[in-house]
Amino acid sequence: MVRRRAKRAQPSPIQSKPEWRQLRHPFKPQEAFSDDRIAAMHDLALRVLEELGIKVLLDEARKVYAKGGARVVDEMVYFGRDMVDAAIASAPASFRMEAPTAARGYQVEDGALIFGPGGGCPNVTDRINGRRPGSIAALEDAIRLCQSFDVIHKVGPCCEAQDVPVHLRHYATMRAQLALSDKSLFVMGRGRQQVTESFEMIRLALNHSDEEFRRGVWCSTVVNTNSPRLLDRPMAQALIDFARYGQLSVITPFCLAGAMAPVTVAGALILQHAEALSALVLTQLVNPGAPAVIGGFGSNVDMKSGAPAFGTPAQIQMSIGTGQLCRHVGLPWRGAAGAASNAPDMQAAGETHHALWGNLMANAGMVFHAAGWLEGGISFGFEKFINDIEALQTIAQLCTRPDSDEDALGWEALTEVDPGGHFFATDQTMNRYEEAFYKPLVADLNNYGNWEMNGAVSAENRATEIWQQVLSEFTPPEGGQDRAGRIEDFVAQHTQAGGAPILD
Amino acid sequence: MVRRRAKRAQPSPIQSKPEWRQLRHPFKPQEAFSDDRIAAMHDLALRVLEELGIKVLLDEARKVYAKGGARVVDEMVYFGRDMVDAAIASAPASFRMEAPTAARGYQVEDGALIFGPGGGCPNVTDRINGRRPGSIAALEDAIRLCQSFDVIHKVGPCCEAQDVPVHLRHYATMRAQLALSDKSLFVMGRGRQQVTESFEMIRLALNHSDEEFRRGVWCSTVVNTNSPRLLDRPMAQALIDFARYGQLSVITPFCLAGAMAPVTVAGALILQHAEALSALVLTQLVNPGAPAVIGGFGSNVDMKSGAPAFGTPAQIQMSIGTGQLCRHVGLPWRGAAGAASNAPDMQAAGETHHALWGNLMANAGMVFHAAGWLEGGISFGFEKFINDIEALQTIAQLCTRPDSDEDALGWEALTEVDPGGHFFATDQTMNRYEEAFYKPLVADLNNYGNWEMNGAVSAENRATEIWQQVLSEFTPPEGGQDRAGRIEDFVAQHTQAGGAPILD
Repeated sequence: MVRRRAKRAQPSPIQSKPEWRQLRHPFKPQEAFSDDRIAAMHDLALRVLEELGIKVLLDEARKVYAKGGARVVDEMVYFGRDMVDAAIASAPASFRMEAPTAARGYQVEDGALIFGPGGGCPNVTDRINGRRPGSIAALEDAIRLCQSFDVIHKVGPCCEAQDVPVHLRHYATMRAQLALSDKSLFVMGRGRQQVTESFEMIRLALNHSDEEFRRGVWCSTVVNTNSPRLLDRPMAQALIDFARYGQLSVITPFCLAGAMAPVTVAGALILQHAEALSALVLTQLVNPGAPAVIGGFGSNVDMKSGAPAFGTPAQIQMSIGTGQLCRHVGLPWRGAAGAASNAPDMQAAGETHHALWGNLMANAGMVFHAAGWLEGGISFGFEKFINDIEALQTIAQLCTRPDSDEDALGWEALTEVDPGGHFFATDQTMNRYEEAFYKPLVADLNNYGNWEMNGAVSAENRATEIWQQVLSEFTPPEGGQDRAGRIEDFVAQHTQAGGAPILD
Repeated sequence: MVRRRAKRAQPSPIQSKPEWRQLRHPFKPQEAFSDDRIAAMHDLALRVLEELGIKVLLDEARKVYAKGGARVVDEMVYFGRDMVDAAIASAPASFRMEAPTAARGYQVEDGALIFGPGGGCPNVTDRINGRRPGSIAALEDAIRLCQSFDVIHKVGPCCEAQDVPVHLRHYATMRAQLALSDKSLFVMGRGRQQVTESFEMIRLALNHSDEEFRRGVWCSTVVNTNSPRLLDRPMAQALIDFARYGQLSVITPFCLAGAMAPVTVAGALILQHAEALSALVLTQLVNPGAPAVIGGFGSNVDMKSGAPAFGTPAQIQMSIGTGQLCRHVGLPWRGAAGAASNAPDMQAAGETHHALWGNLMANAGMVFHAAGWLEGGISFGFEKFINDIEALQTIAQLCTRPDSDEDALGWEALTEVDPGGHFFATDQTMNRYEEAFYKPLVADLNNYGNWEMNGAVSAENRATEIWQQVLSEFTPPEGGQDRAGRIEDFVAQHTQAGGAPILD
């Protein structure tokens, strides 16, 4: 991509805050349903699995289910309640996600708060280069941005590298992640060969033995069920392969109430819960104790256009209900933010803020699509990403309670200032002002006159300068080039051999 | 102002939802401080009142305080704890705010959620007429907008009618409110003559006897202390006059941590709490049981520029802490949203959403500046107002829990759809789709292609069409013209007599 230097030399916009690397929820989880209704919804989800079943397209998966005790009729799989209970019991309630740099690892468990960037977008958009199909160069820039902000806890497939053939894409995306980031890694579940080659690249890059690799959780994949009640071949394959190697499947039904799910929040949650549990069972049959995260990405469709909506009351209520159901079974879970807006404007910000706060109310363990998602996931936007980082940093700062020791209460300061005076010069202010408040990334707090004199630059346009500056100042993480270098031979050989076909 | 018809004939953007007129908080209040630290902060606030005192500029107020048992030294007033305790005991924990149309009244009490529009702005701004000093015409349009949306619960002084001389302004603003709205009314506290004339206008408009007027709470005023620890003449006068007539003082220290208040959240809250209680005492000495709302509008300043910041972690924590302190004394309270942004952009939306959610976390009883506030209150923006209404309607919808009866759980619907199918045609969807989901006001959920084909209109520009349409379709409330008509003679006589000087 065309890179320009930011117009004015500015101090770096990046605040390095190690305490932002492992956040814990500041708020108690809220309720959208009473406990007895949650129990009834869980019970109905089990009934869905028992009586209606899940259609599983991958023969290998159906065999695993059958061997585990499921009733299999043609492509349909029916689950006894004991199978589901066993999977819930064996799946870990808490595990550590590892990263190439150990300090970038984090716990996944009740109360933890992990932010992942917008992911899976076919397009990428920014004010300099316009809206365009995703490319490896754009993905690399997105990874640089993710790497640069401590509130983004994992690398994500922000945009598809569409200029790399799909049978070779996993080489390019793995090399980009390894070279440019030291956060936990993603792998797309596009069939056994791509997945196991990706595992092998991580193992080589990190200098691990096969056993060392399997002992830690080094990467994650998102497994979407095809709601309603369908598990396709690549997704089933990913569940099996990730479980076998002890890597993380983030099981994500995408239940849009009124379309692929019932029109009620409760009904959509029942379906989502059933689908998530059906996939969980597969991971635990393959490898009891394999890490898995359930949850979902639920919202509603606009009943006028059929389009997915985000940041809506229904999405917030689905987030809260998902939290209740997942705590009911005692498992960590993922939620999502996101925006339907086609531009980085007030709609986009409003949708994402509402959705983020819904995840806070729900105590979601992992919040994906937390930065950069636009157009309901069709584009990853750089200006949107920067503005979303402001939201996430604000939330991160809330994860630390305000000081309340005697010095913070500050009787002395209160006595120092006369009525109508100001506190700028008190000892308390002088000692604390540097670190007292969150320093905005993109918000411009100048008064109107100064803002206008500086060119009346909007939040969108300021964000352009910021991402450009972040990219121009970017330094790859220590060891990144070495890690990427250690997969070069592997990539060359496998590219030579024809790459890895994807499973459809 | 220049009014144009919206370009295309659109169905009305207004959803009339009577259930939005009296909201109750959907979330449990959260904590920023432990209970023992809240008790310590309350105790220090009492110590501020006892040992440091409040400077009170109005002689009449000092006499009331002295008569009530306060120690008065020159302009300083020192409060015994018993006086404060007595005021806390006599102030009502719950009262009804009346409105010209009875169904527009609402309870003010723990758990209630009242939204007021942005207020006190010297300027007004929109995309058609630009940024300009507030005028009576602009205020009238703002009142029309407030009247049109059920989630705005009261009329507010959205912008100053600067084209009306200040000694006559209360006539014009009262006439505008009475003619164009039937929601609860505001009166600015600019001295006894303006205030008592305003009460008289309300009494005449509503055909009430003096006793009937005093028996209900028909209007409110915002009383700002001049932090730190100073109560000026018009504000003290308003506290006395509103209490005497049983009308509502919304007591609002504006404690910006790091400037007019200590640099810590805890310290700023102690000062805010002390100031609020000092004003509360005055209302209760004048008329025990007079309605009063405490709280504040706390945030931090940007330590680089000294400018007030909104939607920050400190503002959210101050909101939550204010809620804890006010629940500690058992009194209803107000918070505030707002934005520092100079444009209706992602910063503006982000600040307002964060601030609104802070108020939800805090269970603020009245949330002022909830729509339209820009530039830290220097301008009231019409496009911002419309986008904020989207946020408020989303929150209002959250105040009703999702259905969870058997039909909502919907086993039947789940059985009707095959794997990979859709729920568009189930009986459950057909029966519910009309009212299933919140219908967006300004959000455009079209996909990118359709959005682009429709002109790629941003949220800001769509909002322009919406406020124009709302104004062009506006119908004054039933009885509004009659109410306004009943003050015509009074206004003519008092204008003739020279109006009412303001107290400085």
